[in-house]
Amino acid sequence: MSRKHKAHGSLGDRAAGNGILNRRVFLENTLIAGAVGAVGGSSGAQAQPLVDARWMKEPGAGFIPYGQPSRFESKVVRVIPASANPATPGIGTARTPHHLLNGIITPNGLHFDRSHSGTPDIDPDQHRLLIHGLVKRPLVFTLENLSRYPMESRIAFIECGGNSQALNAPQAQPLNVPGLHGLVGCAEWTGVRLATLLDEASVEPGAKWVVAEGADAASMSRSFPLAKAMGDALLCLYQNGERVRPANGYPVRLLLPGFEGNMNVKWLRRLKLVEAPVMSKDETSKYTILLQDGKAWQFVQPMEVKSIITRPSPGVPLKEPGYYEISGLAWSGNGKIRQVEVSADGGQSWAAAALQEPILPKALTRFRAAWRWSGGSAVLQSRATDDSGMVQPTRAQFMAERGPRGGYHYNAIASWRIDEKGETVNVYA
Amino acid sequence: MSRKHKAHGSLGDRAAGNGILNRRVFLENTLIAGAVGAVGGSSGAQAQPLVDARWMKEPGAGFIPYGQPSRFESKVVRVIPASANPATPGIGTARTPHHLLNGIITPNGLHFDRSHSGTPDIDPDQHRLLIHGLVKRPLVFTLENLSRYPMESRIAFIECGGNSQALNAPQAQPLNVPGLHGLVGCAEWTGVRLATLLDEASVEPGAKWVVAEGADAASMSRSFPLAKAMGDALLCLYQNGERVRPANGYPVRLLLPGFEGNMNVKWLRRLKLVEAPVMSKDETSKYTILLQDGKAWQFVQPMEVKSIITRPSPGVPLKEPGYYEISGLAWSGNGKIRQVEVSADGGQSWAAAALQEPILPKALTRFRAAWRWSGGSAVLQSRATDDSGMVQPTRAQFMAERGPRGGYHYNAIASWRIDEKGETVNVYA
Repeated sequence: MSRKHKAHGSLGDRAAGNGILNRRVFLENTLIAGAVGAVGGSSGAQAQPLVDARWMKEPGAGFIPYGQPSRFESKVVRVIPASANPATPGIGTARTPHHLLNGIITPNGLHFDRSHSGTPDIDPDQHRLLIHGLVKRPLVFTLENLSRYPMESRIAFIECGGNSQALNAPQAQPLNVPGLHGLVGCAEWTGVRLATLLDEASVEPGAKWVVAEGADAASMSRSFPLAKAMGDALLCLYQNGERVRPANGYPVRLLLPGFEGNMNVKWLRRLKLVEAPVMSKDETSKYTILLQDGKAWQFVQPMEVKSIITRPSPGVPLKEPGYYEISGLAWSGNGKIRQVEVSADGGQSWAAAALQEPILPKALTRFRAAWRWSGGSAVLQSRATDDSGMVQPTRAQFMAERGPRGGYHYNAIASWRIDEKGETVNVYA
Repeated sequence: MSRKHKAHGSLGDRAAGNGILNRRVFLENTLIAGAVGAVGGSSGAQAQPLVDARWMKEPGAGFIPYGQPSRFESKVVRVIPASANPATPGIGTARTPHHLLNGIITPNGLHFDRSHSGTPDIDPDQHRLLIHGLVKRPLVFTLENLSRYPMESRIAFIECGGNSQALNAPQAQPLNVPGLHGLVGCAEWTGVRLATLLDEASVEPGAKWVVAEGADAASMSRSFPLAKAMGDALLCLYQNGERVRPANGYPVRLLLPGFEGNMNVKWLRRLKLVEAPVMSKDETSKYTILLQDGKAWQFVQPMEVKSIITRPSPGVPLKEPGYYEISGLAWSGNGKIRQVEVSADGGQSWAAAALQEPILPKALTRFRAAWRWSGGSAVLQSRATDDSGMVQPTRAQFMAERGPRGGYHYNAIASWRIDEKGETVNVYA
């Protein structure tokens, strides 16, 4: 076995400092991974490394009704921080391990889950959805009724308002991707447009807001504007093709594309048309952004433009100097991602990353960039811009505006420092 | 509780015979589901149907590392026909229950699976991929090596060459969607472009084809043209975000977008560059289309334009006359779906269905149409056209060309007959 070595790093390849390369390097395949083992001898070389596999000498396993991941992937699971109160194990989060995933679809088994009172065990035949309040015709729907209506599908992200909040701490915490950014996921959601049902119910002129309530023990409730209800709001029955998972709102979840996570009320049982927000506990004691001067921002609905680098990241070390793909996710509650830039020198220089098509509004967008790690220290950053022109702020800009207590909707540029050993840690840079 | 009744069926709504309605009916929300229960009394009506749910009176379940479907969805599983030989339970199929799904993404647990010798239990650390034959530099890759290369993602369907083959039988079989059409699925696949690796290996001028071989006990092998290898072929490590499922090729699967299912070789261990197809058993004794005159079509690569209605369908009965959504899937191995038409009168009249955006090349496309079932007999059909202009043939046209033995790549228009009870059966019409 021998390593290949090929000329590289011509001046034209350089896109930004500290090894960020032009996409052309990928597109023209002039890349060298530096880690490929060539087979010795002629092109007719035999495949010695292949012939001894145990699994080729015995019949494979039979079919199973509902497939599961490989047993060799048993570590690819959601991260569940210890509950503050062991008596209430369902209060908290299960966080998506994006550092071990790729693409934009979050598989259903790994979609993040934030719950205020655990996952209710809802019998869909008994579940009812009520639409009432300022409507001419209050309506009750069974799941059977709902499934008769025209459906729509869209690929959309959902992000908890508290995602990345740990970056608000005075000192950078030793956390990895799920620990910092694991409260975002993206799925193909299918359901009935809320507008269709509200037309059936006939909304009265005085109605300006809608209160959505879940059928969990906490009765998680949020208010949102009628305009959103009449816009792209969906009552979702399906998540990535199959029925919504219990922890994500089975049997029916409200999707308000781009809006703060818990406004996408799970286990939806009630929609009440009202004149003004009801100031539920879930939009007053929580999910309100407290500023330095004691004032607060309330009803901050769309999640702002944001990006995270998923690889390299803590726990996914670089093994040797050479070429790597910097890969990550970008999203905006306001629309599509227009651009993601990456830096390997802590923001001194930037280069455009490649965006994976299709780029969908209010969905995760995968970005990728070529990087040649010299083996020295580096600080990786990504900076997203959405199609409304909004750009991620630096952490300094974000903190100057928000202060230390305003950690919801944290969307500042994040930084990974890579040391000479190839280990990655969360830093403020 | 009272049923709503609203005027409907004005002449402008009619799009085709036997109740097919104009999309406008959905878009303008003039639809009546006919199954909505209104709450008696004023708009302030209390939500009696909602207050007694058991699951709101107790804390919900705690978090689980890898989520699973609701226990109430335990019937939503793949359909596994009995194996011809009980001693070899891994030879056969597990079929996707598309009649119970929606959207275009097939969840990983339900993606169809066709296997010739069961699912091998591959240790990714021991697995190797060899590229050899007519190349200047034969190469062996570990999974670790492969994961260093630039990645791409695409949402793509995979359809077994034998899907829908039961419609080739002289008499219509009493089968449902999975029984007839369950050997197609669609996922977001992520991996390394094969072209990138072939450039590394440096293909010799004489190479015109590639042989791909799996690491299953059957060494499933297929030949495909070099042009495809240098085009959109991907070596996939990820399926819907997470690592490819064992039954779908873990740890690495070849994706040849649009090509016959088993050319997308699972458990990929070897790619050999050759001058001509090797005539492996999997492309001679099988996956060859035998015509009436004794000649055969071999290496029929792209799956042709096709569509299926997933609802209504056998086992998903209509409960009462009224409005329904006709929903289904269309795809073409040649590109994008341009149009899907639906008929409720056995093909006498047709109307355009709505196509769910984004419409992606070589991916499933969800179509939907509005239908008012009168309570009488109906024959539902769908007819897809792709962007190359190819249109699904009728069964008569298809059989006239192929004859009774040429059942691979069956893509003729399929028919569901609905009787006065609302039951649906497979028919030839």
